Amino acid sequence: MGNKKYSKEELRHMAPVEIRRLIRAGEIDEPTCGMADGYAQGNLVILPKEYAYDFLLYAQRNPKPCPILEVSDAGSRNFVQMGEDSDIARDFPRYRIYEYGKMTGEYTDVSSFWRDDFVSFLIGCSFSFEADLLENNVPVRQIEEGRNVPMYDTSIPCQPAGVFHGNMVVSMRPIPSGLIPKAVQITAAMARVHGAPVHIGNPAEIGIKDINAPDYGEAVTIRPGEIPVFWACGVTPQNAVIQSKLPFVITHAPGHMFITDVRNADLKY
Amino acid sequence: MGNKKYSKEELRHMAPVEIRRLIRAGEIDEPTCGMADGYAQGNLVILPKEYAYDFLLYAQRNPKPCPILEVSDAGSRNFVQMGEDSDIARDFPRYRIYEYGKMTGEYTDVSSFWRDDFVSFLIGCSFSFEADLLENNVPVRQIEEGRNVPMYDTSIPCQPAGVFHGNMVVSMRPIPSGLIPKAVQITAAMARVHGAPVHIGNPAEIGIKDINAPDYGEAVTIRPGEIPVFWACGVTPQNAVIQSKLPFVITHAPGHMFITDVRNADLKY
Repeated sequence: MGNKKYSKEELRHMAPVEIRRLIRAGEIDEPTCGMADGYAQGNLVILPKEYAYDFLLYAQRNPKPCPILEVSDAGSRNFVQMGEDSDIARDFPRYRIYEYGKMTGEYTDVSSFWRDDFVSFLIGCSFSFEADLLENNVPVRQIEEGRNVPMYDTSIPCQPAGVFHGNMVVSMRPIPSGLIPKAVQITAAMARVHGAPVHIGNPAEIGIKDINAPDYGEAVTIRPGEIPVFWACGVTPQNAVIQSKLPFVITHAPGHMFITDVRNADLKY
Repeated sequence: MGNKKYSKEELRHMAPVEIRRLIRAGEIDEPTCGMADGYAQGNLVILPKEYAYDFLLYAQRNPKPCPILEVSDAGSRNFVQMGEDSDIARDFPRYRIYEYGKMTGEYTDVSSFWRDDFVSFLIGCSFSFEADLLENNVPVRQIEEGRNVPMYDTSIPCQPAGVFHGNMVVSMRPIPSGLIPKAVQITAAMARVHGAPVHIGNPAEIGIKDINAPDYGEAVTIRPGEIPVFWACGVTPQNAVIQSKLPFVITHAPGHMFITDVRNADLKY
């Protein structure tokens, strides 16, 4: 395991390309949170080309939950814009394979499964705006509490596209009332990773029954004077893909993401 | 001709749905500039579905010149999000048909050509941010001078996607130096219609030889103290489509656009 060879501090200051090479060589096999400080990380969906149009259209119609950073050419294993000399089949620490909607395996390398008709989608993630929130003294509770962010199924419908459909999944961060304007402005400036919140306040209005019982991730403390703020979440497209029961899909394993060469700050433009 | 039946002032204050119905009925057949004040207008590209993925990918890779507002379902003649009860084949005042890269006709109604595999792309246009510039006292020279905006081929490459490729086409507006920060902020806030400028200043740096000889549209006066400011232009995808020499493509005729139900101001969010 990589965490034996490299300290968190070392990984924080390494260049993205260096970390990708260590992941590729099997030297690092752990969640990427905190690695290559300042650089954007991305989620993965790999689909056979026959479903790629529907998925790209789903993303176009639902940009907040599904912010596409890059789409590979069919068959290409390289994210040419976001990861120089990258290898999509080996540069994520962990992958999951789904067949007909069921997970059939977890792998550190999917090159043996590769097909010429695979299209890879790199999808923006909230790590990018959380760094900016912290930088601007807006608290990010799940980081303070060392938990996974709480995520909820909602009654907010997504626009369907072909075989993909479903309601929006949101993540929640409790924000002190007075800091909400700042939190909205900071995240609105990052439209390429979920953008501004989709809801602020009463969870029931978007179909969330119990704020303390998230559908994914872990509950966090909401302190007096704080209001729950909800952002569109990347679990939305992942669920849509799994629920569509396609014959063969590859995703990253939760938390095991792609470290891009692009700085979070550059996602604002 | 509609301009005999309705004054410019009447058309300025009509609701989008009303104007679309008059266009559909053949009562209006003229450029849409100035109609339904405050509402966004959109350009059109209709392609057979087999090319739709490449075009959507081209737009994803080149969002500034190709800001997609809506993509219809294959065969559907309705822009469900942006134009309630719209008829894509009849609600633009004029269409052009291209076969193998050559224009073969101009029509006010393309319903007789309709096919079940047609996918329609509604593309954002700079009218939306020009209204905001004027509102904020930033001059828009070609409007002052009653001309078409000057547009130029450049040396800025677009990211190719499948059969679509080419360099970026830009539009130019001369802006007084002191107002450039305002112009950048106003247009940056409208990422759904070309967004912030792609270049400010020396035209030669982006391959423009003579600022007084635009490749499309008309030259405008650049006054002392003004600097040419360049924005990505919707002619880029239109050129890419024509140059790809597809067997059959429908576009709107220049200036004859779709009037949406969405206010320009709402394109900021």
